[in-house]
Amino acid sequence: MKKSILRFSAAARLPAGFRATGIVAGLKASGQPDMAMFFSDAPAALAGTFTTNQVKAATVRLDSERVATVGMAHGVVVNSGQANACTGKNGLRDAQAMAAHAAQQFGVAPEMFLVCSTGRIGIPLRMDIILPGIEKLAQAVVPGGGESAARGIMTTDTRPKRFTVPFIANGKPCRLTGIAKGAGMIQPCMATMLAFLLTDAKVDRRAMQKALKAAVDKSFNRISVDADQSTNDTVLMLANGRAGNTALKPGHRDWPSFVAALDGVTFRLAMEMVRDGEGAQKMVTVRVQGARTPADAEAAARAVANSFLVKTSWVGSYPNWGRIMDALGYSPAKVDETKVEIRYDNLLAAQNGVKEGASIEQLSKVAAKKEFLITIDLHLGRHAATVYSCDCTEEYVRINK
Amino acid sequence: MKKSILRFSAAARLPAGFRATGIVAGLKASGQPDMAMFFSDAPAALAGTFTTNQVKAATVRLDSERVATVGMAHGVVVNSGQANACTGKNGLRDAQAMAAHAAQQFGVAPEMFLVCSTGRIGIPLRMDIILPGIEKLAQAVVPGGGESAARGIMTTDTRPKRFTVPFIANGKPCRLTGIAKGAGMIQPCMATMLAFLLTDAKVDRRAMQKALKAAVDKSFNRISVDADQSTNDTVLMLANGRAGNTALKPGHRDWPSFVAALDGVTFRLAMEMVRDGEGAQKMVTVRVQGARTPADAEAAARAVANSFLVKTSWVGSYPNWGRIMDALGYSPAKVDETKVEIRYDNLLAAQNGVKEGASIEQLSKVAAKKEFLITIDLHLGRHAATVYSCDCTEEYVRINK
Repeated sequence: MKKSILRFSAAARLPAGFRATGIVAGLKASGQPDMAMFFSDAPAALAGTFTTNQVKAATVRLDSERVATVGMAHGVVVNSGQANACTGKNGLRDAQAMAAHAAQQFGVAPEMFLVCSTGRIGIPLRMDIILPGIEKLAQAVVPGGGESAARGIMTTDTRPKRFTVPFIANGKPCRLTGIAKGAGMIQPCMATMLAFLLTDAKVDRRAMQKALKAAVDKSFNRISVDADQSTNDTVLMLANGRAGNTALKPGHRDWPSFVAALDGVTFRLAMEMVRDGEGAQKMVTVRVQGARTPADAEAAARAVANSFLVKTSWVGSYPNWGRIMDALGYSPAKVDETKVEIRYDNLLAAQNGVKEGASIEQLSKVAAKKEFLITIDLHLGRHAATVYSCDCTEEYVRINK
Repeated sequence: MKKSILRFSAAARLPAGFRATGIVAGLKASGQPDMAMFFSDAPAALAGTFTTNQVKAATVRLDSERVATVGMAHGVVVNSGQANACTGKNGLRDAQAMAAHAAQQFGVAPEMFLVCSTGRIGIPLRMDIILPGIEKLAQAVVPGGGESAARGIMTTDTRPKRFTVPFIANGKPCRLTGIAKGAGMIQPCMATMLAFLLTDAKVDRRAMQKALKAAVDKSFNRISVDADQSTNDTVLMLANGRAGNTALKPGHRDWPSFVAALDGVTFRLAMEMVRDGEGAQKMVTVRVQGARTPADAEAAARAVANSFLVKTSWVGSYPNWGRIMDALGYSPAKVDETKVEIRYDNLLAAQNGVKEGASIEQLSKVAAKKEFLITIDLHLGRHAATVYSCDCTEEYVRINK
């Protein structure tokens, strides 16, 4: 295992053969960057995971089909401000036109481009702004444009989210860069979030798809901002093989390094999304253990992490373990209140379902921290689950009203 | 059906043979009223429904057992400020002591009194304040004390909630009075809410239990403030028979009048709870029709009514039907986005899943109203469900932090 030597940096230093940029195309009244592009000079192996919402943006329908049928890509064009969801046949036609227009700029086949949109649902895309934007992007993409692209995909994010990690495959230096946007609607399975994972390693496409799915389940699928789930969630991964290694897959001696790099980047991006949840000031890790079944552990952790009474209580730094008990009780998980144990970091707050251990003053010190851990032991079995959550502040309401 | 002639008044004019009051016992730092009592001079037939939360307050455990085994009661003592939930064996002992102490003041058997508590979870009851409070209440109960009792049970409610309706049974004048508290934690099945229904009609106990359950399902179980569900929800009904009618039950010619009175009072109390939801400024009725199954109709309506992205959008009066589509899509209900139709009051907002009909300006006028109706037709079947919801304002966060 080479996990221990990986050095993750909070920067978007693109892997070899990739170019990117972000621009102000004019979709947002605020004048903030609203389009971005990622491009690989060589065709790259493609993997992707998408929202499980039954209402899917046109871009999700287009990209998921291309992941399944084409399996390769040269690039991705992204716009924020408009979601291209609930836009019907016109929306799908617009998404196709965006991909085709982008591909045309580089002289590659139209199906070699993917499209992501994020923003307001149900309004027709401003193609009069987007098509010229694509031309501008295609001219502006540069190897050093990762940071610019990270800003171009932001919506209510307060800061760009990106990580880069070098790793070795067949002795050759490789790199993996992840760039994401998060903010609201984060729950239970990937929310208004987009993430792009780029590597210059050569990776077997099927193995990459499985590794990506596993990485997403441990990262983006374990965070909760407001329990809403978006129509547009997309994670795309491109591996262009420029490093010159033999294709990574299980059994390859450097496969564990690749997986560790992928898991590490996705997890760090996910944590950044929670920390930067709409209006969030605190990140709280909710761990349920001692559950009867894995599903019970999951349901109990999500009930607590999603409860607005719990999330608002974190704002005030009051260790309101009673609201945690309440949320556990209405969760679908089997709970016996006389067995429940709750800890704030390592301080005992409740045992056998009643107040025990540390004083409210001691617990308040933990609850006042920017980041803390709540451990709930149901004492009914041996299953555990962890969800990463944030507080719900007045600012959350201001952003979304 | 005598439904049409029932006159509901927003007042707590207690039925014959009942006395009540509310007092400041000293449980709340604010100095607001914090205890109340209801007493029937004659033993009354008793019915009750309770929270389905697995974590149950001591009072819920005590009262539900008395409803099941005693079936009669003389009175109820209520405190706000402390929930007596997650208080273990001591909590149950305290609840029993409260009932016994109240019963003792009137010289009736201890099991003829019920107890309700509401407030913060997990702290031991201040019996040193509550027991003297009970003595004070017992001396202060009066036939004209309904309004005072309605204030004594309030927590974050901004106004008392009570309705009285006269009806006729065997030609004798009867009355039904309902007094309730609501506010936060309102969802899906009775939330931090208490309601007391008092009548001087004689009612068959089993029939009354069934009618109460049916009334609660159509009222308190159909409202949503924040999707949280409390440990303390309790609805109690006492019928003391002072009117001198023959016992009301199905088949009795005046049974429909009684049911209409009960349904009308509980529904009005439930609507008052939504209107006065914590921080709420608007009441929005969410109706889903055309669902494949009753469960689908219910799940879709609750997903929309509980979504914080939908609820926060109502604050700003923007007709954000896209967030409704999003919530429908992640609900467990079967949804085909190409068939969904959404209306604000009678204005079409979306058809076949895309924008259609009224302009955003026209829809905004509806969304700016204090109360409006959102109708969602899934066009997949013939089942419908309605949930009464409210907006989620910054004030909600302020109250709960």
